[in-house]
Amino acid sequence: MSTYFGKMMRGFPEWLPSAKRQELAVLKTISSIYESYGYTPIETAAVEKTKSLATTGDVSKEIFGIHRLAGEGGEQRKAEFGLHFDLTLPFARYTAENAGQLQFPFKRYQIQKVWRGERPQQGRYREFYQSDIDIVGDGDLPAHFEAEVVEVVYSIFTKLNVGDFTVRINNRKLLEGYYRDLGIEDMGQTLIAIDKIDKEGSERVIEMLLENGLSQEQAEACVELAAKKFTISEGLKFVAELEAKNEVLEEAKVELTEIFNNLSHLPEGAVIFDLSIARGLDYYTGSVYECTLKGLEHCGSVCSGGRYDNLAGKFTKRSLPGVGLSIGITRLLYLLFENDRLPLLAPTPTQAVVILFDESQRPAANKVAAELRDAGINTEVSHQARKFGKQIQHAEKRGARFIIIPEEDGSCSAKDLQTGEQESLCVEKLVSLLKD
Amino acid sequence: MSTYFGKMMRGFPEWLPSAKRQELAVLKTISSIYESYGYTPIETAAVEKTKSLATTGDVSKEIFGIHRLAGEGGEQRKAEFGLHFDLTLPFARYTAENAGQLQFPFKRYQIQKVWRGERPQQGRYREFYQSDIDIVGDGDLPAHFEAEVVEVVYSIFTKLNVGDFTVRINNRKLLEGYYRDLGIEDMGQTLIAIDKIDKEGSERVIEMLLENGLSQEQAEACVELAAKKFTISEGLKFVAELEAKNEVLEEAKVELTEIFNNLSHLPEGAVIFDLSIARGLDYYTGSVYECTLKGLEHCGSVCSGGRYDNLAGKFTKRSLPGVGLSIGITRLLYLLFENDRLPLLAPTPTQAVVILFDESQRPAANKVAAELRDAGINTEVSHQARKFGKQIQHAEKRGARFIIIPEEDGSCSAKDLQTGEQESLCVEKLVSLLKD
Repeated sequence: MSTYFGKMMRGFPEWLPSAKRQELAVLKTISSIYESYGYTPIETAAVEKTKSLATTGDVSKEIFGIHRLAGEGGEQRKAEFGLHFDLTLPFARYTAENAGQLQFPFKRYQIQKVWRGERPQQGRYREFYQSDIDIVGDGDLPAHFEAEVVEVVYSIFTKLNVGDFTVRINNRKLLEGYYRDLGIEDMGQTLIAIDKIDKEGSERVIEMLLENGLSQEQAEACVELAAKKFTISEGLKFVAELEAKNEVLEEAKVELTEIFNNLSHLPEGAVIFDLSIARGLDYYTGSVYECTLKGLEHCGSVCSGGRYDNLAGKFTKRSLPGVGLSIGITRLLYLLFENDRLPLLAPTPTQAVVILFDESQRPAANKVAAELRDAGINTEVSHQARKFGKQIQHAEKRGARFIIIPEEDGSCSAKDLQTGEQESLCVEKLVSLLKD
Repeated sequence: MSTYFGKMMRGFPEWLPSAKRQELAVLKTISSIYESYGYTPIETAAVEKTKSLATTGDVSKEIFGIHRLAGEGGEQRKAEFGLHFDLTLPFARYTAENAGQLQFPFKRYQIQKVWRGERPQQGRYREFYQSDIDIVGDGDLPAHFEAEVVEVVYSIFTKLNVGDFTVRINNRKLLEGYYRDLGIEDMGQTLIAIDKIDKEGSERVIEMLLENGLSQEQAEACVELAAKKFTISEGLKFVAELEAKNEVLEEAKVELTEIFNNLSHLPEGAVIFDLSIARGLDYYTGSVYECTLKGLEHCGSVCSGGRYDNLAGKFTKRSLPGVGLSIGITRLLYLLFENDRLPLLAPTPTQAVVILFDESQRPAANKVAAELRDAGINTEVSHQARKFGKQIQHAEKRGARFIIIPEEDGSCSAKDLQTGEQESLCVEKLVSLLKD
């Protein structure tokens, strides 16, 4: 029996309370970091029009359509709406529709469930939380925002305190410029092959590149480039020395210099410039980055993103370039719980339980509890005036730190269940004691 | 153009950022009150098996079924899953399935979207947030929890600070005991008619009761009873003097005494014992209550709930009596915004913006911003080193209170955009100034 997942319908995970409380704590940490950079929250409907969702054949297979059950007769009903499968498309639609009432650059965060009708596997679900940020410019977007998003990733995983992690950044233009210089024409296939280098190894990737029609020399040069890894200050030096033999490489040089300069206030080694990162998604046009947990690299990245040149071409003629990142929260939590990188919390938020020797004390106990709550202490009154030991046990099971024992004279005793210390106090003093 | 709703697909509302930020603030207030009473968060999947959802004909019409779009060919596909239309049924299933790993009484809160395929109208949506609490006992549940839930409602609307409101409580057993004593047999129809007294008026309700087969005397007695309204201390007196002519009235007398005693620590008038409250839903078996906003009574209740004897009969043989409440958040926010009872917040969480005179200052500005963020101040660096006035305007539009102006010598000036005051400070002093 899982200690964090409840029983579930296949692919639709549900946390037990101790895990749900930790998920809320993680989301709170993440959203406060987003807000500290000025990202503003939005939430879009769970559904989009089916015609907007259905982009490519591959993704369409994963879409859950919705339709009213009533009237489900013999006739085939076309689903007008479907559940969104990511937060990027809904964000693009929202930004396009409300552009007149938004301020650009528009920095938003969005934490919502998404649904994918894929085959459920361990760590892969049909319903899960995503937590995204994006900055979108109206017409243009300076490269320093690409640095900011990477800084946000670094801040989040530092603050979450879930062990060592690696944030890696690369730039599509740099790779494409190099490939162009090598005389390679099929950029897409080359990027896809290079992206597999971590998983498949250099030899297999060289084979793939040869199969794609590259020469032995070209393939080896690509793999050699992908092997380079630098800290940010080393990266700055590498880029400065870079001979820009074509326009794309020249752009990469300028942008990477700006990006690295804007990461220079982070500790050395916080971000790795890793030339093997390519990211599969073909809408990325500049920086790409990802974060992996040290020791869990085989589980893949827990956060990834990049720069794209046009977000909402489907919905508006406005050019809306952007840069963003996405964290798969449900999968991240699963990995952290499963690998003991994050503890479960107490099953309830209760901090203090007021004990009752007799039901007649309840109205007075309610008053004490109300005062404690006003002071910010989560307090329950014992649900039943049963044996003292039973009440303590119950309080402990709920994760409460203190029990409050009402005295005849209207004062109280507070007992710390962790240290065993007990003190007799008036309610005012009790409040100030527990607040500390 | 709405200042709080974005453009939307019919029935699927989406807030603009200023409204979404206020919704989050409201939800934070509500969930901290829930937690202060020891309610623990859970979240269930958005979907349930269709066969569990489809209870009554009326509700079934409102269910959105889901199915994978792929393979949608000529054949009719039966939807195996549907989106939940409330949080009670999913909670019942969750509690039944995970009972072995939960502690009873199980006090949970749940804030999630629900979906109803009904015709969208003003204030009535196809997708909206609900915010529920329930306490469920294993086998039995003492009546004092019915008082607690009412106290929670009172605490929430006090804390939300959205103007005057009325919390009203009644008890189904009391009404049924009276009706039985009057010789009335059709309890359900009588309760439904009485529940309409606020909307339809006494005369129309008497007509309805007569149509249901009640005598003039019976109908008048019902309406007379429904006209009674007491404060809690008056209610205690009324109940003490109550002649319990049958078993149901006797039960009502005992339970109401316990409930009122456990509300006696609230200010007089905080809760009104109102004998016209019946609530339509037929699964309530004891207390029923609701909250309306003063001046907006015609909009109906913004929060309601009651006691039910068995939550999860569909999913388990265990008897799980409970008591709960539900707040329709989206509709509540709409009412509050529309009637100027709640302000919109600033469009971003940004509190300070670091100004740039030249792009070359950005890396240094990043460092200042990082220190401010560490100190808990939401900080952006100006996105572009353009004219000073433009940058101030941009900061104001984002709702920032301060701009930070870097000086040549590494110190900073902070300018308060509200008061116009400006002070030159080292970064450390700046941090401590802004924290206050």
